[in-house]
Amino acid sequence: MNNLGLWHGGDYYPEQWLDQPEILNKDIELFLQAGINTVTLGVFAWSFLEPEEGKFDFTWLLKRVDQLYENGISVIMATPSGARPKWMSDRYPNVLRVNETRQRQLFGGRHNHCYTSSVYREKVARINQKLAQTFKAHPGVIMWHISNEYGGECHCPLCQDAFRGWLKKRYDSIEELNRKWCNAFWSHKYLSFDQIESPSTIGENMVHGLNLDWKRFVTEQTSDFAACEIKALREAGAMQPVTANFMYDFKGLNYKRFSQEIDVVSWDSYPLWHKRAEILTARDNGLQHDFMRSLKKKPFLLMESSPSSTNWQGVSKLKKPGMLKLDSLHAVAHGSDSVLYFQMRQSNGSSEKFHGAVIDHYGGEDTRVFQEVCEIGEALNSLKEVSGTSVRSKVALIYDTESRWAMEDAQGPRNNSLYHHEACVKIYSAIKKLGFNVDVISMEDDFTGYEFIAAPMLYMFRSQVEEKLRTFVEEGGKLMVTYWSGIVDEWDHCFLGGVPYGLMDVLGLRSTEIDGLYDGEVNHLVSVSGTWEEKEYECRNLCDLIKVQGAEALFVYRDDFYQGYPALTRNQYGKGLAYYVCADVEAKFYDDFFRRVMKESKIEPLVRGEIPEGLEVCSRESDEFEYLFIQNFNREPVTLSSELMDDLEAGTFLYGDKSDHGEIGGFQTLVVKREK
Amino acid sequence: MNNLGLWHGGDYYPEQWLDQPEILNKDIELFLQAGINTVTLGVFAWSFLEPEEGKFDFTWLLKRVDQLYENGISVIMATPSGARPKWMSDRYPNVLRVNETRQRQLFGGRHNHCYTSSVYREKVARINQKLAQTFKAHPGVIMWHISNEYGGECHCPLCQDAFRGWLKKRYDSIEELNRKWCNAFWSHKYLSFDQIESPSTIGENMVHGLNLDWKRFVTEQTSDFAACEIKALREAGAMQPVTANFMYDFKGLNYKRFSQEIDVVSWDSYPLWHKRAEILTARDNGLQHDFMRSLKKKPFLLMESSPSSTNWQGVSKLKKPGMLKLDSLHAVAHGSDSVLYFQMRQSNGSSEKFHGAVIDHYGGEDTRVFQEVCEIGEALNSLKEVSGTSVRSKVALIYDTESRWAMEDAQGPRNNSLYHHEACVKIYSAIKKLGFNVDVISMEDDFTGYEFIAAPMLYMFRSQVEEKLRTFVEEGGKLMVTYWSGIVDEWDHCFLGGVPYGLMDVLGLRSTEIDGLYDGEVNHLVSVSGTWEEKEYECRNLCDLIKVQGAEALFVYRDDFYQGYPALTRNQYGKGLAYYVCADVEAKFYDDFFRRVMKESKIEPLVRGEIPEGLEVCSRESDEFEYLFIQNFNREPVTLSSELMDDLEAGTFLYGDKSDHGEIGGFQTLVVKREK
Amino acid sequence: MNNLGLWHGGDYYPEQWLDQPEILNKDIELFLQAGINTVTLGVFAWSFLEPEEGKFDFTWLLKRVDQLYENGISVIMATPSGARPKWMSDRYPNVLRVNETRQRQLFGGRHNHCYTSSVYREKVARINQKLAQTFKAHPGVIMWHISNEYGGECHCPLCQDAFRGWLKKRYDSIEELNRKWCNAFWSHKYLSFDQIESPSTIGENMVHGLNLDWKRFVTEQTSDFAACEIKALREAGAMQPVTANFMYDFKGLNYKRFSQEIDVVSWDSYPLWHKRAEILTARDNGLQHDFMRSLKKKPFLLMESSPSSTNWQGVSKLKKPGMLKLDSLHAVAHGSDSVLYFQMRQSNGSSEKFHGAVIDHYGGEDTRVFQEVCEIGEALNSLKEVSGTSVRSKVALIYDTESRWAMEDAQGPRNNSLYHHEACVKIYSAIKKLGFNVDVISMEDDFTGYEFIAAPMLYMFRSQVEEKLRTFVEEGGKLMVTYWSGIVDEWDHCFLGGVPYGLMDVLGLRSTEIDGLYDGEVNHLVSVSGTWEEKEYECRNLCDLIKVQGAEALFVYRDDFYQGYPALTRNQYGKGLAYYVCADVEAKFYDDFFRRVMKESKIEPLVRGEIPEGLEVCSRESDEFEYLFIQNFNREPVTLSSELMDDLEAGTFLYGDKSDHGEIGGFQTLVVKREK
Repeated sequence: MNNLGLWHGGDYYPEQWLDQPEILNKDIELFLQAGINTVTLGVFAWSFLEPEEGKFDFTWLLKRVDQLYENGISVIMATPSGARPKWMSDRYPNVLRVNETRQRQLFGGRHNHCYTSSVYREKVARINQKLAQTFKAHPGVIMWHISNEYGGECHCPLCQDAFRGWLKKRYDSIEELNRKWCNAFWSHKYLSFDQIESPSTIGENMVHGLNLDWKRFVTEQTSDFAACEIKALREAGAMQPVTANFMYDFKGLNYKRFSQEIDVVSWDSYPLWHKRAEILTARDNGLQHDFMRSLKKKPFLLMESSPSSTNWQGVSKLKKPGMLKLDSLHAVAHGSDSVLYFQMRQSNGSSEKFHGAVIDHYGGEDTRVFQEVCEIGEALNSLKEVSGTSVRSKVALIYDTESRWAMEDAQGPRNNSLYHHEACVKIYSAIKKLGFNVDVISMEDDFTGYEFIAAPMLYMFRSQVEEKLRTFVEEGGKLMVTYWSGIVDEWDHCFLGGVPYGLMDVLGLRSTEIDGLYDGEVNHLVSVSGTWEEKEYECRNLCDLIKVQGAEALFVYRDDFYQGYPALTRNQYGKGLAYYVCADVEAKFYDDFFRRVMKESKIEPLVRGEIPEGLEVCSRESDEFEYLFIQNFNREPVTLSSELMDDLEAGTFLYGDKSDHGEIGGFQTLVVKREK
Repeated sequence: MNNLGLWHGGDYYPEQWLDQPEILNKDIELFLQAGINTVTLGVFAWSFLEPEEGKFDFTWLLKRVDQLYENGISVIMATPSGARPKWMSDRYPNVLRVNETRQRQLFGGRHNHCYTSSVYREKVARINQKLAQTFKAHPGVIMWHISNEYGGECHCPLCQDAFRGWLKKRYDSIEELNRKWCNAFWSHKYLSFDQIESPSTIGENMVHGLNLDWKRFVTEQTSDFAACEIKALREAGAMQPVTANFMYDFKGLNYKRFSQEIDVVSWDSYPLWHKRAEILTARDNGLQHDFMRSLKKKPFLLMESSPSSTNWQGVSKLKKPGMLKLDSLHAVAHGSDSVLYFQMRQSNGSSEKFHGAVIDHYGGEDTRVFQEVCEIGEALNSLKEVSGTSVRSKVALIYDTESRWAMEDAQGPRNNSLYHHEACVKIYSAIKKLGFNVDVISMEDDFTGYEFIAAPMLYMFRSQVEEKLRTFVEEGGKLMVTYWSGIVDEWDHCFLGGVPYGLMDVLGLRSTEIDGLYDGEVNHLVSVSGTWEEKEYECRNLCDLIKVQGAEALFVYRDDFYQGYPALTRNQYGKGLAYYVCADVEAKFYDDFFRRVMKESKIEPLVRGEIPEGLEVCSRESDEFEYLFIQNFNREPVTLSSELMDDLEAGTFLYGDKSDHGEIGGFQTLVVKREK
Repeated sequence: MNNLGLWHGGDYYPEQWLDQPEILNKDIELFLQAGINTVTLGVFAWSFLEPEEGKFDFTWLLKRVDQLYENGISVIMATPSGARPKWMSDRYPNVLRVNETRQRQLFGGRHNHCYTSSVYREKVARINQKLAQTFKAHPGVIMWHISNEYGGECHCPLCQDAFRGWLKKRYDSIEELNRKWCNAFWSHKYLSFDQIESPSTIGENMVHGLNLDWKRFVTEQTSDFAACEIKALREAGAMQPVTANFMYDFKGLNYKRFSQEIDVVSWDSYPLWHKRAEILTARDNGLQHDFMRSLKKKPFLLMESSPSSTNWQGVSKLKKPGMLKLDSLHAVAHGSDSVLYFQMRQSNGSSEKFHGAVIDHYGGEDTRVFQEVCEIGEALNSLKEVSGTSVRSKVALIYDTESRWAMEDAQGPRNNSLYHHEACVKIYSAIKKLGFNVDVISMEDDFTGYEFIAAPMLYMFRSQVEEKLRTFVEEGGKLMVTYWSGIVDEWDHCFLGGVPYGLMDVLGLRSTEIDGLYDGEVNHLVSVSGTWEEKEYECRNLCDLIKVQGAEALFVYRDDFYQGYPALTRNQYGKGLAYYVCADVEAKFYDDFFRRVMKESKIEPLVRGEIPEGLEVCSRESDEFEYLFIQNFNREPVTLSSELMDDLEAGTFLYGDKSDHGEIGGFQTLVVKREK
């Protein structure tokens, strides 16, 4: 994005130390020592920028930006809308959110304003303009960071009106809305749009159409709020790119929609390392990295990460030596152009005072954490040329927000839990183990260019996804669909006449019933003799009972009254193949499935040779070069096979030593640069 | 009740498909195929019947009733009060409930109206009258179904006033109320009835007298509301019998009281099959069937049951092949004159769209579920003559709602759980295993005619139950009382001077202290040598320490400081015997106890010969015949002993094949008709 | 405190039985039989004393006091403020509390008034004055019992104003408050005191400075309320000492501060016996006794205890034979001058009707419980001379309320749980096992006179505790500090520049990082060879990583990346020694640690010879005599070593038989009187 290479730095709050200039100077000194080239300023700084209504003071901030710039450190400038000063809600109470039980919140916390309030929008626009006027031409300010971790919802009268207005635009008439929301059920028909109220536990929360449209509206309203923030910057002449920081597996917003408003996606990553095998955590978090990258199919930013422990998880575990670097480079491997931390210097009071920081309360550079941050600074410097390179994937996983909203809101086969996220991680991990890049996409995305698409639990079919998948297979693509797919349309109406809707011929089957298994209850898949090798796998939670209509059964159920019913099928359609997985099978199944299917379909991974357990391979590429990242998530060194080493040695080692013995150290990363 | 024989059908919502006449016609076709003779219409149909205030439209409904009638299908017509249209709460907010924290609810859900609101009562009366005028003379309408699953409570000002009025009638003076509620405690004396407020977690919820009277009031007010609904029908000339549908083990209403308002009891049965041994679920649900039948001591209706899975339990498990029929005939065996389902056709949207139905979203007749429904249609046809027959029981179990209310509200020996329901099921099951019918009755019921009465955990003694039990024993009855019985009177005042109140001489003992056992803690009962055979049983939760005053100890405690204290006693009183069980003993104890006691007392079961594990025997009888139901809740076939087979073969097999090998198939039902 | 010796009796509610004089007379008879010499009257009696506003009636109470006095029974007279009559909140709604979500409570329960309401203060003052006028000169009234179990908080507008006023006094300016509360964080700066609102889950609850000051304010306001109650008594001429009853490990108030208002500390003790080894329960409850005694360093009163089971715990277990006496004398051993029960006669209705009582619903004296109460009466009579004697401790444990408030509110290394209480109990138990008295003190207390001070998890350092500890060690004291100490100052600001603040040189180390361990995760401590004997202990939850700067490592970690890092250190400082425990180690460690350290430091316990497992030794002393209490918490008899027996036999056995075989019976107590 600029000539800094990969960005290294993080959230920095000089306003907390304005009365201690020696600390601010010490910060700069330590930043330089650690190879910090970028910090984020201004998050939550409103009460310093506008301490009283209409009285603005930007001098302290400008001074900081200048000093940083003089020292070669760039600034990501945040708009302050994440937290309001007290005077604003005192004078304009309607900036405060109303919760779903219709109680107006008091001042406090953060991220708690009404997105509809015109007062709040005006106040935000005004301060954003002032900020833009001050920093639009400052060479040290390289990006705008809009608010912070947008989320939550407001049920105030203003939002109710906005919701009704949004619905009026969406539906031609109240009759159409009644039909779409299925309001014949329980006598819930509305006579006019004015009668509609947002979902509430003290009112209506069982009408799925209403719940779904409310979630859509919240995304629209939040996106619109962000758009207004950005508009204010642009109108004042700020031309730097804008980002907003997203969160892990966040269900409050449809990020696919929201990301249209911004130039660059960034996110805040706080994986729980050292709780189970590190590679499992790496897969789970890697899926999120890939999701963020796939939103715009271009590099994203790691906007926040903890240099040490967090302070808000149940247990604040220290990162063991080497993990901080491994984790940081993991983000880069998946497409991040930055390693940014929360926070540069630990605050000395209030609720985040024990969150990890580059500089802790002790304040010296002789800390384990600061030393590792310095090492990362060096590593990022070595990898400078990776900045801006892209990721190409042959495989896509569909992970659609609206479909999850609808599926999880529905009362259906398993209210205890559907284990959608877990199923996606199992599938994702099986593919990553083989050494593929994976795009994690939505239903609206373009499916062309992929060789394999996995569509697990794709409950909702909209945007003609069934037509796009049909075409994909017809033209030679390989598709995997699972149980509980193609059940409802965009309005959560069940498809009549058989499911998975629109794909029954492509898959060669019809789903007839779905059985919910009690917690702890298991069934098994056994291979149909003469097809694949003899295997048996456990399945749990959900078992789809299908009637094949052309498909070939590769596995059948072993137990219960549906013993012998098909459990994994394959169907030739056009030039492609369509697989259907009937049950929530254990991870081992997916490992074996993809190993076989990718081989049969001749879809080639990034490297040759077996990838040892606990290692991950990713790649980024420029027009000329491919950058292979090999990361060892084991604490112990691992020997690489000669086949794999030969493949790697075809390139040059940009980062990490090629051992004489073909070994990769515990928690180590190798980066190999190969010509394309 | 009419000449249909046993009713077969269920809840049907044609209003959801009015714009698709081909679906409505297909419904009729499928109903006829499945032997459907009765459907319920109008539940939740208000917004179709009165889309705007005062504008009524019954044509669509009349058309459906006509078409059904022409096809030989009768209708149970529901009043629509279970869900209000939106316009009503918009115009008359006081129809909305106020919860116990005094917050007025918003529009939404169902079953959420104030039972006191005169507006709501007027609106309901008016639409009920219109319905009655339309259908009173329609030969196709055979019963009225009042509202749906009455329940819940309202704390609005109108209800507060009504509560005060009800209390004024109940107590002569505020001084009397203060005495009865024990308001000397914590300075809670009232100076006038106007000071009284309903229980609330933000106010008073520890005064048991208040809590108990509030629950009584809620039952009275709900019963009164139902009575008003019925009055409106009757005044408009409707003469068909009325029912209201009850729920499993529902503690919100005293059904004994409520059932006085209606002609026929019906209930909605959703057992969780396939979660543990089926026979255990059958016993648990059988107790509920018997409770419903005993309310009026005449046949009841199975008003709702799922043809497949439900959608609202934690896990929605499919019914395995044969279970739907077994479950349906189980209701008939216990006294139901119907097998009715929720729902005939699956709705295609909103919150119950995944609830099982006779016709599912796919819509074809080639489904496993539809085929089993057809089989049930045939079975019910074979059993036509069973309709209207009664059940006679030699054994009664007292399962009293007010006593449970008081016991569970009290802070006492075990707040973690008293396991009252579980104790009742253990006792009920032990008796059922021997082949008896059991009545499940309240304290007000008549005790004459029974040979054995079990009174487990009868905490409250009111309506002179102690006198009735004394007379019962005196005249030769066999009685079993347990720990935690006869503790308080009607107002939850502890009896002074020794407990179980009024029965100490009948039982020959006094309870001195009761020990609560921690979760997981056990004690044991051991037989007193020379009395019964040598046995040892585990007990848990509660151990009563008694002083015998005439009774004989048959078992004593094995452990703790009360080792050797009596744990099971027997006392001769008048011509009868009174047993006292001191502790919450394991099921095996009750099995052995009843086997021995019934034999010693020569109380004869329905059949001769041992009943195999997992089978249940019930009977219904007309003036001339007895209909024996033998149901196998095992998935595997079971061989019947020759003694039992001989007994059965004395009659004729009305349903189910008598196997040559004296075997009953897995999940199969036999019905044998014998002359009396 | 008077010539009654040890007080024996408890809470008595004659007002519940005024219409049954035969019961009141029976009470006196039974009291005399049981050696009752003191009862508490008037708790919750307001609606009997002032049934209507301004209409007072004290005759019934005076009559009771007279009758009791005539029978030699003294009275502790309670003020009735623990529960208001209904008329008061009806007329003056602002006496009702407002909860933290700003909802005004309804009438009900108890302990629910606003402490700020001037109306409530006036009403209380007036009735207290009337009570004082009536009983100030009554020889039967020996003490005043102010209200009951003060606790809870109110967020009404009056309390908001009072809070702001209190803050204005505490901070010179709003700028200072902003600094102290760290309001630069999240833009939370206030412009004036008027903007401040109390913490709320619907507003601000993450600003630790606010939360902490709010808790301090609640203590101040409650103390002030109590002071007003007492002032009313004193102004009306009442000269008897006053007490207020405290609760187990109560975090709602800072009892150290509150206790300044009263003459005598008393508390309500309800240990859960028979749930685990009795000695563990005894240690846990003993710590509380010692805490209560240490508040004023003089005898306290056991104000409430259950003669049998309680009714409010999850499981109401009976006390096994002997436990009531053992428990009662345990209080005396730790410094109580009384054994008082809740309640004398069981109420026959409302929420506490099943709480244990001296006289139960049955009402006879032939109960197990009543007989044991009689035995206690005799025991207390034998121990008369112990009344008024004090407890001297060489060891102190710092257990500071404000530090716990701050530590538990902070989001830090282990939000799941810090296990502070458990750590304190482990340390306390290890010391008690060796036969020491222990004072349980606050940071403000005087440290002189102690030989050993344990300061576990002393998160907050204020009142110059670091200086006091430095001096303590310098002058020869032995100190033990643990992980997570000296982290923040009085305002919860983290100390910069290294921790434990102010003690790094005394301890010879600096804490660098702290690792949170997941639930179930363990590390180990292993001894450094050549220092102490070879041992290994488990540690969990928290592991501090330190850098030694002079201290000697006695133990190091065995596992994880900090294997070999110091885990227990010792540092010579001045004439003393300072130990630092880095991790939450198992109890066995502390047992071995204190056994060794006390021996090395020649700190002598109360008795010579090994104290068997399950026994506890305490002592009280007068100017001339020492009273040794030896209590056996095992159910079985235990043999005492000859060394220990010799030591005991140097004195005389004031209570309990010296067995010929040097044995102490199960659940038995010996009291030995020795000259000093």
